[in-house]
Amino acid sequence: MNLVLLRLSEVDFRGRVLIDGRRARHVIEVLRAKPQDKFQAGILDGPIGEAEVLKVFNDGRVEFQFEPLREAPPPLPVTLVLALPRPKVLKRVIAAAASMGVKQIVLLNAFRVEKPYWSSEQIKPASLYEACVLGLEQGCDTILPEIRLATLFKPFVQDRLPEMIAGRRAFVAHPGVEVEAPAGISEPMVLVIGPEGGFIDYEIDLLKTAGCLPVRLGERILKVETAIPYLLGRLGVAGNERDTR
Amino acid sequence: MNLVLLRLSEVDFRGRVLIDGRRARHVIEVLRAKPQDKFQAGILDGPIGEAEVLKVFNDGRVEFQFEPLREAPPPLPVTLVLALPRPKVLKRVIAAAASMGVKQIVLLNAFRVEKPYWSSEQIKPASLYEACVLGLEQGCDTILPEIRLATLFKPFVQDRLPEMIAGRRAFVAHPGVEVEAPAGISEPMVLVIGPEGGFIDYEIDLLKTAGCLPVRLGERILKVETAIPYLLGRLGVAGNERDTR
Repeated sequence: MNLVLLRLSEVDFRGRVLIDGRRARHVIEVLRAKPQDKFQAGILDGPIGEAEVLKVFNDGRVEFQFEPLREAPPPLPVTLVLALPRPKVLKRVIAAAASMGVKQIVLLNAFRVEKPYWSSEQIKPASLYEACVLGLEQGCDTILPEIRLATLFKPFVQDRLPEMIAGRRAFVAHPGVEVEAPAGISEPMVLVIGPEGGFIDYEIDLLKTAGCLPVRLGERILKVETAIPYLLGRLGVAGNERDTR
Repeated sequence: MNLVLLRLSEVDFRGRVLIDGRRARHVIEVLRAKPQDKFQAGILDGPIGEAEVLKVFNDGRVEFQFEPLREAPPPLPVTLVLALPRPKVLKRVIAAAASMGVKQIVLLNAFRVEKPYWSSEQIKPASLYEACVLGLEQGCDTILPEIRLATLFKPFVQDRLPEMIAGRRAFVAHPGVEVEAPAGISEPMVLVIGPEGGFIDYEIDLLKTAGCLPVRLGERILKVETAIPYLLGRLGVAGNERDTR
């Protein structure tokens, strides 16, 4: 946790905040904060700032004064369309995407996505929200990603994807094609990543028709949790960042 | 498992191989292979080729014929110097690095590396070997990474690191510096990644003296398992790949 995330409703009119639970334990046990110590905090969908500890209570709550100092870092201008991963990796993948600044995520069905994945605990809104919060706390960001579920491949790719792509570049990671993923793009883009075992040919054809260019990530086949940061780094969409400090 | 990895001693003079255990279960249960079916296999530190199933035994063993077809993909020309991560993530990080083609890994001590990490199960040779094998099976590669342990920061960085860097570019990922990690480098390089909480100033100074340029990955702080693929993608060392198919 590199930033303690607060809900706006937790901050009173004087900027005072009282937290308990996981966040308070972090402040006490990891940061070992005492009164007058400072740490980084931020308001969900709001500014980032400085927290100054006022009091550490015996019951494990922490009271502090919050002062907003700056905006959240700019979003990564990428829409991530991701074949729904196994429940076990979903949380990690969402948290990692959130930590890198991805703000638009679509979880997509595909032929090789196993049906039970769609009814797992991990895909429920509360679990996805929790994964996003963990990612924002890691990456020092406050803006929650929007996550949409597309449980039907064809209607999504035919009807919704083209308008998401409009005016942007779109890539689908697909081992075996000849075109290498380009490097160092600074424009907004849509990035589509398939399931374990990849998209089937029919799906790739529909994605191409919708405007996606199939690209490979070199000769190796990467796990989704490795492929996403690799591709975001390679495509270089982070190049849009500005220094707000 | 995108490639079934064999030891040379498992292949007889006719190219026949008999496997059991985890690999045989993969061939039977995931690939659902029957006689004459083919799958991708490779010999550790040797060629990649095609396996044709000869027989599936009732006791779960599988016999197949192996034919070598091509070399392993070229290595990623990067030496990864990594502050020893928590045992829980070490295996995942090593497997991910191996899956991306990293062949030189140094696990380094640092002020913020907790001492017990060095005596964990996960850092024993058999565990590191297993993590490498999982990564190669994922990435379709056969060349085992070399992993060195550097339990003393200063002697390693002062005496060993400069000669590893000689003639190459070297970067240390360090949040908060002004220089962004460059993109799309095609030369060999050394990449140094710090522990949770980062290197301390004294360590950064020694790394700079040894020839490392501190760079940041944008404004966000990433977990080591996200930062490594992100940086490898961004720095673009994969650009050295050639198509061997």
